[in-house]
Amino acid sequence: MSGDSLGKLFKVTNWGESHGPAVGCVVEGCPPGIELSEQDIQPYLDKRRPGQSQLVTQRNEADQVRILSGTVDGKTTGTAISLMIENSNSRSKDYSEFAKLYRPSHADFTYQQKYGIRDVAGGGRSSARTTAANVAAGAIAQKVLSEIGVEVLSWVETVGAIKSQLPIEQITESLVESNPVRCPDQNIAKEMEQKILEIRKQGDTIGGVVRCVVRNMPVGLGEPLFDKLEADLAKAMLSINASKGFEIGSGFDGTTMVGSEHNDIFYRDEDGAIKTHGNNSGGVQGGISNGMDLDFKVAFKPVATLMQKQKTVDLNGDEIEYQGRGRHDPCVLPRAVPIVDAMAALVLCDHLLRYRAYRA
Amino acid sequence: MSGDSLGKLFKVTNWGESHGPAVGCVVEGCPPGIELSEQDIQPYLDKRRPGQSQLVTQRNEADQVRILSGTVDGKTTGTAISLMIENSNSRSKDYSEFAKLYRPSHADFTYQQKYGIRDVAGGGRSSARTTAANVAAGAIAQKVLSEIGVEVLSWVETVGAIKSQLPIEQITESLVESNPVRCPDQNIAKEMEQKILEIRKQGDTIGGVVRCVVRNMPVGLGEPLFDKLEADLAKAMLSINASKGFEIGSGFDGTTMVGSEHNDIFYRDEDGAIKTHGNNSGGVQGGISNGMDLDFKVAFKPVATLMQKQKTVDLNGDEIEYQGRGRHDPCVLPRAVPIVDAMAALVLCDHLLRYRAYRA
Amino acid sequence: MSGDSLGKLFKVTNWGESHGPAVGCVVEGCPPGIELSEQDIQPYLDKRRPGQSQLVTQRNEADQVRILSGTVDGKTTGTAISLMIENSNSRSKDYSEFAKLYRPSHADFTYQQKYGIRDVAGGGRSSARTTAANVAAGAIAQKVLSEIGVEVLSWVETVGAIKSQLPIEQITESLVESNPVRCPDQNIAKEMEQKILEIRKQGDTIGGVVRCVVRNMPVGLGEPLFDKLEADLAKAMLSINASKGFEIGSGFDGTTMVGSEHNDIFYRDEDGAIKTHGNNSGGVQGGISNGMDLDFKVAFKPVATLMQKQKTVDLNGDEIEYQGRGRHDPCVLPRAVPIVDAMAALVLCDHLLRYRAYRA
Amino acid sequence: MSGDSLGKLFKVTNWGESHGPAVGCVVEGCPPGIELSEQDIQPYLDKRRPGQSQLVTQRNEADQVRILSGTVDGKTTGTAISLMIENSNSRSKDYSEFAKLYRPSHADFTYQQKYGIRDVAGGGRSSARTTAANVAAGAIAQKVLSEIGVEVLSWVETVGAIKSQLPIEQITESLVESNPVRCPDQNIAKEMEQKILEIRKQGDTIGGVVRCVVRNMPVGLGEPLFDKLEADLAKAMLSINASKGFEIGSGFDGTTMVGSEHNDIFYRDEDGAIKTHGNNSGGVQGGISNGMDLDFKVAFKPVATLMQKQKTVDLNGDEIEYQGRGRHDPCVLPRAVPIVDAMAALVLCDHLLRYRAYRA
Repeated sequence: MSGDSLGKLFKVTNWGESHGPAVGCVVEGCPPGIELSEQDIQPYLDKRRPGQSQLVTQRNEADQVRILSGTVDGKTTGTAISLMIENSNSRSKDYSEFAKLYRPSHADFTYQQKYGIRDVAGGGRSSARTTAANVAAGAIAQKVLSEIGVEVLSWVETVGAIKSQLPIEQITESLVESNPVRCPDQNIAKEMEQKILEIRKQGDTIGGVVRCVVRNMPVGLGEPLFDKLEADLAKAMLSINASKGFEIGSGFDGTTMVGSEHNDIFYRDEDGAIKTHGNNSGGVQGGISNGMDLDFKVAFKPVATLMQKQKTVDLNGDEIEYQGRGRHDPCVLPRAVPIVDAMAALVLCDHLLRYRAYRA
Repeated sequence: MSGDSLGKLFKVTNWGESHGPAVGCVVEGCPPGIELSEQDIQPYLDKRRPGQSQLVTQRNEADQVRILSGTVDGKTTGTAISLMIENSNSRSKDYSEFAKLYRPSHADFTYQQKYGIRDVAGGGRSSARTTAANVAAGAIAQKVLSEIGVEVLSWVETVGAIKSQLPIEQITESLVESNPVRCPDQNIAKEMEQKILEIRKQGDTIGGVVRCVVRNMPVGLGEPLFDKLEADLAKAMLSINASKGFEIGSGFDGTTMVGSEHNDIFYRDEDGAIKTHGNNSGGVQGGISNGMDLDFKVAFKPVATLMQKQKTVDLNGDEIEYQGRGRHDPCVLPRAVPIVDAMAALVLCDHLLRYRAYRA
Repeated sequence: MSGDSLGKLFKVTNWGESHGPAVGCVVEGCPPGIELSEQDIQPYLDKRRPGQSQLVTQRNEADQVRILSGTVDGKTTGTAISLMIENSNSRSKDYSEFAKLYRPSHADFTYQQKYGIRDVAGGGRSSARTTAANVAAGAIAQKVLSEIGVEVLSWVETVGAIKSQLPIEQITESLVESNPVRCPDQNIAKEMEQKILEIRKQGDTIGGVVRCVVRNMPVGLGEPLFDKLEADLAKAMLSINASKGFEIGSGFDGTTMVGSEHNDIFYRDEDGAIKTHGNNSGGVQGGISNGMDLDFKVAFKPVATLMQKQKTVDLNGDEIEYQGRGRHDPCVLPRAVPIVDAMAALVLCDHLLRYRAYRA
Repeated sequence: MSGDSLGKLFKVTNWGESHGPAVGCVVEGCPPGIELSEQDIQPYLDKRRPGQSQLVTQRNEADQVRILSGTVDGKTTGTAISLMIENSNSRSKDYSEFAKLYRPSHADFTYQQKYGIRDVAGGGRSSARTTAANVAAGAIAQKVLSEIGVEVLSWVETVGAIKSQLPIEQITESLVESNPVRCPDQNIAKEMEQKILEIRKQGDTIGGVVRCVVRNMPVGLGEPLFDKLEADLAKAMLSINASKGFEIGSGFDGTTMVGSEHNDIFYRDEDGAIKTHGNNSGGVQGGISNGMDLDFKVAFKPVATLMQKQKTVDLNGDEIEYQGRGRHDPCVLPRAVPIVDAMAALVLCDHLLRYRAYRA
């Protein structure tokens, strides 16, 4: 109930703090007989790993995952899979001063008020370090999804006001991975990179938008009322650190359209499949996937830790000044891409299993 | 698992179809000893009820709620509360033709594919009629929240491109309820009203944004990882029919800010409470309420049913034309307001109980 | 969380009180396309109905079930099924005196202490009347199970010290239903009947054991750790009013055996299937069904309401005398049979769906 | 959904196999601010540990627990607690032969059929080794319960037909722990010990009953319908390896009583508290604790692995002979005691938190 689990049939239970011995998770519901080893998971963690480029935090974690249960001879057994990632490079000394104050737009204040105690080092449980375990779990979900050809693909759509111009159909994983920003539009990616470096030099940070498409979607995932596919995606995305918004298909832009413009018109394609002209629906209708690509966006605010002085209060509420130290991301977007991928894969895999339950 | 339940401690289980005998829900977890009768719930249903004005559907349902369990002598007993609202005015004949086609941007196609069978009349389970039961459940949640002074207040922020200009601090329930659009800015409300009537005359529909603030929030609601308060709100909002987006605090606009601009700076107010200058966080930090007002927005697309001809396909995928008939909303926004209120109240009440569980 | 739901994929949410307007439930997860009407459910309710014979309470309820959602044209649609049974014959006046005292071995005291309020009439939520809704839900589960040939069969194994002697293989539904006690051994049934009538004449009550076998079981239902099939059955059975014990296979008798006697030895039968000699396991090994018949027993205590004077206390704890009035069962066993059937069917159906989820 | 989690508010998610790198669990819902270190957990594991005496398996595991998350400076933080126990002494070579056959009354057959794959070494996930993690989680639950004085006390009530004669009121933890059988009746304990050694010499095994009382119980734990306290206890107990039955209070013996004998008569004690004469209810009425001691029993079958030849089948169903090797318990009862303690503590702690949620 403390909310560390996500999913109903394919379920991940996350644990760990930024500067504890390790982070990890338990993955329930993975079908048996799937080939799975650490080598399947590690590439996803490497994408999320700090220290990849100048654009992200220089904290240097190897982020080696270990599978502690649920497989035998390199195959899943259908039982709970336990994953652990040791925290190799935790500098607890960096954080002692922060026990005495509440950093602006961090969780220091709310944790202290809620629990009466908090793990100060690295933000403890509120740290985005916890997403490493979700990325590892997401890698397993990707394995399951790949068996039916589903492809989850996220990228950086905007950094600040700079926006990718590449048509969505042209976007591939290799384009996304071809630059450190993870924007598939190479020219725009350069602009974004310069912007981030400039912001970094100012000791400041900047936000942006990650967009995700899921291709080769089966029809029928999602449930009528509360567990609509987009509702579960929204929850998963808003659970990512620093995310502030979610939209599917036309999203907020769609609110200014009229219905005759917004409706996606059905047609039969050359293969006899029923498709739609346009995808304002974003791949879901009535909460259930319609076979078109899923298409959604996640808003990320600028990172709260700045390398410049800010006013804030100490535990008594007295005004003080503080400045972030250590290794922090000037822009969370490039590292948010594999996290969005993972969360999307977790939600889809859960709904895939739920779908199967009703087929005799 | 078919996803008809929302909440963990304060839980609503929704049932019913548009043209069945009734819609309803079971509410678990309501604390005992709270005064509750149909009169407490009915006003909320009346706000959602069709036929209130020319701006919304003319379907005329009395929407009388009955409490079938969980109270004695006008007080809750702590046991499951069953609510039922009969469908008094269901014209099944209106819908027979629709069994043979898939209406654009409706759930006809996805339901048919997922289940191999569907309740055609009124869209069956995919109808927004199901939200009546959620509004009734939300009324109970509001009762629980009102005991600690929490006030949930939603309104129509935009219709198409027309946007309320009223400062958020000035918005009151009576302003919201003083016009049929439920926009607190009276001049803008008139513009919106004209826009909706004009769109209606064209047989078209239009979307918009509902904004919600929650005042007098306690500190500490929400959980660290997946059950962040904003994550559960996002899920609840995306589960509302026709919603396509959610944002909290700065939302998508916040993605273009730099951190030094975005951070909410803590200070101690005259009463000694720790508050923030600005509320880009939208009342949550690290997934937990910080005592500032919750502030979030929900995007609604234009209604899919048009009173004009559209192309679509029949069950074989052959192209045909169809036109909506009967009684439909040209703009869902005014009636979405009490639904957003209800869903917010349900989420908050659940987290309030969860919070209490950990206090000795 | 108030514990009104059972099951994860095939889930029933129960509501209602003894003397409220109705009892009912919501059934989630029923596969689509199954023929279902009130006529499928009513026979199960008729078995549980009071007033069937002199052996049970003379309270006379028609117990007519209504399906309020989840079907169209006599078939399930895959969405939530709402069932309601009106309380036609509630004599609230019978119970006013009981507001002032705590009846021995009833839930009056615990409800009052837990909630600070209670629905006195008929015991409110603590009444076995709530099982009517479970029996109705169980009827739907039976429908799903019958599609794969699974047969759930319960009977009265003992009343007091009187025990059926009929070999388990010879027991059929028609034998069980051929007498009002629901004991398949016709001679023993007569003895039991006389015993119950005798006890009734004394204003007393008596307990007994219901035994259940499930034939034509598929292999593979149940989960390794906590959701073992027998664990979920145990929970379901102990949730029935007046039940005090559960055992599967050899049960408590098995504790006096040695392993070489207790082990069920595998062999291959003439059809090539792997079976066991003996069934001390009761049809489960490691929490998972092995294809042998499920075989379990449920202990029911004597009904707490006596038609003779008993000492007890009033709300202040002062000693008083009280005597039950109205219509009560001298022996709950005959009516417990359809309830055990229903609860078994609910658990099995849930695990059947869970099993299917992991098959591609 | 693979059923590795137990509890709703105080929740344990178990992972691990007999011969994998480790077993462990994640504990959610522990209140913040509780002193907790490995030293609090280790004594409970030491009680369950193999190799304690000649009565149990000689497998020699140190069973050192590590806390990987959820505490800071020796106190719980309110976030998920991850516990890990490495499998130090796993002799995988012992088990290679067993891949080719199905051991009688083990889970080999059911796992193979359900999953199409199984972890042969030590029985993999079906091994009682997984209970080590539950015992560790139970130690945390005991900590929470001890804050309000609740005492959970289990012991060996019978081994085969030999039964403790000590009145329940006289039983203390030190009496239970004063002999390797964990029977508080010292003379009977000797008899049991001799019986177990004799059985062991024969290469056979024997079953028995663990009884548990919970003293200083608060009134009000448990929920009306399905989550009755005894229902959740029954599930938890039947989830323990080798358990075949559960009874609370009078249990199966109560089925032969008449109501006037069985009812527990209320009275007011010298302190003004309402108590009952007798405790046939076993501490619960209507599914809710009444403040009397909880009193329940759990049946354990004889261990399936024998040190003598048994017939069974290979994977094709052909008859073969096999004999257990390695280190096995001739009688599981002594080591079952701390497991029953742990499972009881987990259920009670969950219901304690649920109870608190409804108090303002």
